[in-house]
Amino acid sequence: MLECLVNGEISNFLAATNRGLNYADGLFETLVIRNGRPLRWQAHMDRLGAGCERLGMSMPPQAVLLREVQTVSTGLADAVVKIILTRDGRERGYMPEKDSTSTRIVSAHLFPVGAAEFAHNGVRTRICDLRLAIQPALGGIKHLSRLEQVMASAELRDKGAEEGILLDPEDHIISAVSANIFLVVENRLLTPRLDRCGVRGVVRAAILAGFAARCEQRRLLVDMFQEADEVFICNSVRGIVPVTAIDEREFEIGLVTRELQTWLQEGARMA
Amino acid sequence: MLECLVNGEISNFLAATNRGLNYADGLFETLVIRNGRPLRWQAHMDRLGAGCERLGMSMPPQAVLLREVQTVSTGLADAVVKIILTRDGRERGYMPEKDSTSTRIVSAHLFPVGAAEFAHNGVRTRICDLRLAIQPALGGIKHLSRLEQVMASAELRDKGAEEGILLDPEDHIISAVSANIFLVVENRLLTPRLDRCGVRGVVRAAILAGFAARCEQRRLLVDMFQEADEVFICNSVRGIVPVTAIDEREFEIGLVTRELQTWLQEGARMA
Repeated sequence: MLECLVNGEISNFLAATNRGLNYADGLFETLVIRNGRPLRWQAHMDRLGAGCERLGMSMPPQAVLLREVQTVSTGLADAVVKIILTRDGRERGYMPEKDSTSTRIVSAHLFPVGAAEFAHNGVRTRICDLRLAIQPALGGIKHLSRLEQVMASAELRDKGAEEGILLDPEDHIISAVSANIFLVVENRLLTPRLDRCGVRGVVRAAILAGFAARCEQRRLLVDMFQEADEVFICNSVRGIVPVTAIDEREFEIGLVTRELQTWLQEGARMA
Repeated sequence: MLECLVNGEISNFLAATNRGLNYADGLFETLVIRNGRPLRWQAHMDRLGAGCERLGMSMPPQAVLLREVQTVSTGLADAVVKIILTRDGRERGYMPEKDSTSTRIVSAHLFPVGAAEFAHNGVRTRICDLRLAIQPALGGIKHLSRLEQVMASAELRDKGAEEGILLDPEDHIISAVSANIFLVVENRLLTPRLDRCGVRGVVRAAILAGFAARCEQRRLLVDMFQEADEVFICNSVRGIVPVTAIDEREFEIGLVTRELQTWLQEGARMA
């Protein structure tokens, strides 16, 4: 971690009573700083706001968050900034207070090495044994309860896989462990609905908005991989990454994936 | 919070990079200090150890935890001590390191007022709209992902209810929001299986061990409340609490519940 602000003050520490720690009672965003400016800022703020509304948490003013993001990334051309928002409130007990304030933890991190290689060469994946639980009350938002992703990642570590595909208990494709997923089927872009689990990523949202006529959000059974011409995953930090294998099935890196990568990079340059 | 130790040092603060905060990657125990001594210590340690094994986390030596519990509760006759254990490891990224150490956060809190009245008078409950997700990978352990309980508690707050009953999506009874549940049906003690969601509480475990011949762990559909003569909930802090209402259905506080309360109190006195 390069620099961290807790409620606007330089600090690497937070209270042991913090409800984010005690109950995962909060949300987070991971965003990219490029040439000193946050990418897709408004999309991140929209998702954070939607999460606050779902959890009944108060959303800090965007201007305050932006100032803190700028402060921690001062002097950094490329970086990753993480915003954690936790609900303030009672020291013990699950019950949240109404209209409680939020604690802001804003930290800057080095941009991960190897992102460009991933995007160029693609990534081999495995389907994880762990299934994402169906919880419509939390589906789509980027809350702090990420134990499923931790356990799925432990599985990948033990199998020596780079990235994993997560299914729900009914064999629907949901996402990668730390990215959304698209299947290219006859030039159409199919991506799972995320109303019951998974996180609605901002790159996913950008693709859905930018290619609305070609996109479809639907339930996708795992068999659908057999019909896909291309598969790619996407998140804020790594952008669009081609999937070159899912277990034993190999995929070529296709033209549609390359087209979308170019489009996303152009968008970031112009932002 | 009265006193807090982080890895044995007096501190109310922990690192912003802590994986418990960032990913809910950890476990907790809430235990009661009575007459200066922790109640049901070994049962709490057994559950914590089972949780560590499930998550692939390292369990600190029990002697270390006991010393820290004793330190924070020095001079307190009655108190609640919370132990949080979080996985150490990489600053960013879900993937846990193999054989990483754990961070210990041990804090003492005032014993809540009103526990004796609750146990005597019972509690009125509502069935929560929020359903617990089915996640066998996490079922039974006391991990830090407690957003479901927070959301269920917000529901209770808005409805002015004291305690809530949680079902799974298939209409099975699982637990109260912060307690396990038993149904007394023709003198038998029925309690839900907690292999798919819920937390295996230490008072529940004590009852299952102490009344093995009368107990049954099974799937219980919500209709089963209609057949129950008595219903009670239990946790470490509040002990056994009679349920006097579930939505519109009223329950008498019965002899079996009172018998178990007496038995539990005797056990605590003799411990």
